[in-house]
Amino acid sequence: MPLEIYLDLISQPCRSVYIFAKKNNIPFEFKKILLFKGEQYSEEFGKVNYFRKVPVIKDGDFTLSESIAILTYLAEKYGTPDHWYPADLQTRARVHEYLSWQHSGMRGIAGKILWLRLMIPKAFEIDVPKERMDSLLVDLEGSLTAFEEKFLQDKPFIAGQKISLADLVAIVEIMQNVTSSSPMADRVVSPLGP
Amino acid sequence: MPLEIYLDLISQPCRSVYIFAKKNNIPFEFKKILLFKGEQYSEEFGKVNYFRKVPVIKDGDFTLSESIAILTYLAEKYGTPDHWYPADLQTRARVHEYLSWQHSGMRGIAGKILWLRLMIPKAFEIDVPKERMDSLLVDLEGSLTAFEEKFLQDKPFIAGQKISLADLVAIVEIMQNVTSSSPMADRVVSPLGP
Repeated sequence: MPLEIYLDLISQPCRSVYIFAKKNNIPFEFKKILLFKGEQYSEEFGKVNYFRKVPVIKDGDFTLSESIAILTYLAEKYGTPDHWYPADLQTRARVHEYLSWQHSGMRGIAGKILWLRLMIPKAFEIDVPKERMDSLLVDLEGSLTAFEEKFLQDKPFIAGQKISLADLVAIVEIMQNVTSSSPMADRVVSPLGP
Repeated sequence: MPLEIYLDLISQPCRSVYIFAKKNNIPFEFKKILLFKGEQYSEEFGKVNYFRKVPVIKDGDFTLSESIAILTYLAEKYGTPDHWYPADLQTRARVHEYLSWQHSGMRGIAGKILWLRLMIPKAFEIDVPKERMDSLLVDLEGSLTAFEEKFLQDKPFIAGQKISLADLVAIVEIMQNVTSSSPMADRVVSPLGP
């Protein structure tokens, strides 16, 4: 049985796993779980993931949730190029440091912006108080500054000269909110130029 | 220069690193940072950790924050017994799965209880609304249930028959709130009996 990955690509953690698997030619069966259709609440999916969240993988009898755990598992199992999950102890620790910090430091903040700005107003016709949004944007500014000053510094990538799992997990969160009208747009420079 | 670990043992993540280092006879210099005295705001400590948080380690020129990153770094560097951070791919993935989930699933919830019940009322003389506390206790009940049903199941430890970093990180959070008058007390059975 091939590796199965349960995904909905509207989800940032799903995109990190999807990009990683495709980029590294890891063969897998794409099991689509449409979150807005509530497919995660099916009896069948409840057997795959207790938390009814994506991404989750099934590798034979082995089921694994949490995108960070999935990414490190796939990197080790498929022996992807070292830069993704460096074997060097201190370089790997830098990757782990970001992957640990980002739960509350980036995802917990950036992930809320889209909900407050788009999903909640559209889906529930509730206006989010301006102060709530302003406060979150201040937090986000702090997160992006920490990302630059503490994690990136003067290096092209978090762990040094090459892309790692940490950068992949960062970019799917940071890009989630980037549109031409987004307050984050001026913080992001496209590698393809303007 | 010996390994330096900056700690305040009132902090749960500090206790996990401290217990791990002591239990595994890892030699280190205990650098005390008293959080309630604001020692994390000193100019000197700002050079050690951008985020002004503990725990953080200095291993020669290498500085590392985030307790999860520190624990895995120490486990690998000092070759601690395998059960702490299992080399087996799927067993290690189970450890990573918990260590990833717990940021929002356990620490983000259990960690707030002490603040709302004790610190904020004592330090700032602010009464926390009962509804806020009640809502957090409902979340905590969900976290403890998930901990039992999804992570522990019928095993003595998260990754199987032996203690791992995941259990250590779990226990410091869960025990933080346990007192004889705590609503969590009846969920925890002391290994020493009543």
